[in-house]
Amino acid sequence: MSQDNAILVGFPLFEEADLLDVTVPLELLAFLERPAVRIQLIGRSLTEPVTLAPGKVRVMPDTTFQSCPQLDVLMVPGGSGVLAAMKDRNYLDFIRYQAAKARYVAAVCAGSLPLAAAGLLNGYTATTHWASLSALHLFPQVNVALGYPRYVLSGNRITTGGVSSGIDMALALCALLGGEEQAKQVQLLIQYAPQPPYQAGDPTTADPITWGEACKRLEPLRESRVDFIRTLLGLKP
Amino acid sequence: MSQDNAILVGFPLFEEADLLDVTVPLELLAFLERPAVRIQLIGRSLTEPVTLAPGKVRVMPDTTFQSCPQLDVLMVPGGSGVLAAMKDRNYLDFIRYQAAKARYVAAVCAGSLPLAAAGLLNGYTATTHWASLSALHLFPQVNVALGYPRYVLSGNRITTGGVSSGIDMALALCALLGGEEQAKQVQLLIQYAPQPPYQAGDPTTADPITWGEACKRLEPLRESRVDFIRTLLGLKP
Repeated sequence: MSQDNAILVGFPLFEEADLLDVTVPLELLAFLERPAVRIQLIGRSLTEPVTLAPGKVRVMPDTTFQSCPQLDVLMVPGGSGVLAAMKDRNYLDFIRYQAAKARYVAAVCAGSLPLAAAGLLNGYTATTHWASLSALHLFPQVNVALGYPRYVLSGNRITTGGVSSGIDMALALCALLGGEEQAKQVQLLIQYAPQPPYQAGDPTTADPITWGEACKRLEPLRESRVDFIRTLLGLKP
Repeated sequence: MSQDNAILVGFPLFEEADLLDVTVPLELLAFLERPAVRIQLIGRSLTEPVTLAPGKVRVMPDTTFQSCPQLDVLMVPGGSGVLAAMKDRNYLDFIRYQAAKARYVAAVCAGSLPLAAAGLLNGYTATTHWASLSALHLFPQVNVALGYPRYVLSGNRITTGGVSSGIDMALALCALLGGEEQAKQVQLLIQYAPQPPYQAGDPTTADPITWGEACKRLEPLRESRVDFIRTLLGLKP
């Protein structure tokens, strides 16, 4: 907790972290009034922007991995850069260090993979983006939830499905931190009365063409992550 | 359209533009593959970040109001800085100039207000965040849609309800630009199978306490916008 009693919510960034994995929970939590929330975007340096994906959005860090204070909520994003984050020992050390004293340790989308690679999901139930479930299943001490839940709260760990699941998770976290009435107000502020145009929101409802094309698109990402995790865990022949 | 035939989607930024009003349509459109999309965040200078709200996220512009090429899609965000944007003649001149040749002219959330202030919704049907509807109603030539639609497509104008409505609008725009099959793939990529935790997503379903508190919170913003628009339109006694 910060000096002004605001809750510190920190996002350890990496190149090509997913833009909405960061900005969705960031905005929803920042709308809390009691307790107030202060956001910390964490990067390598205060002067160099971090490029989020897709769209190549360059954001300035608020603090660095070296100088970041103890966070109340640690929020690890997913995105196409997740493989590099898993390979970065300093990144894993940072989230391990912060997780030890954080009130909540969360990951959005494929952010569950660096969390698992750091050992922080051992003994917990978790989920992730549908395309990363096979990678998460490789960790023998992680209990992967059945199906495609929007989010899973297990102890003080919170993990989510893909990108937009961050909305449902962040509202749940708003309720945990500030009570249900405030979570409802945040839902009304962002006018979250969704009307998805198609039944294509997860693999159980998407039609075979959509599912096939999306799998084809994500297969190289999936394969590179599975390969790396196998090596990491000594599962390679 | 850019030299590489990518569709240019531009967000004219201002201080305290809403973070998700920018990042939601940005990410969803950037996921389109055919046609490819190139994002342009537009600011006053290439070296000074623009601070988005809430959470004080500082993003670097990709181009400036002076040097921005003709956009295919103009996307005006809302947010607490909307009043200042409406007062900024250069901002209104820029969106007027771009709108004249853009394929689609869109606004997210209270971004409808600067769009209307620039005269760009005259003769069109439009909507906005529920807390900005009374302000939008002041423009005599704007036909405000009944109720709380997620988005309204009227000619080549697209306007939305609050913040999260940008998801539904962006998926519709993905379909307009790249076809329904690609829009479905984007919906699956972001795993948009929402499960709102409460019936608090718009004024018709929120309970009286939630509604009352949210109105109290947004009243100063609402009042300052209504006052300014009355003056702008000569509606003051």
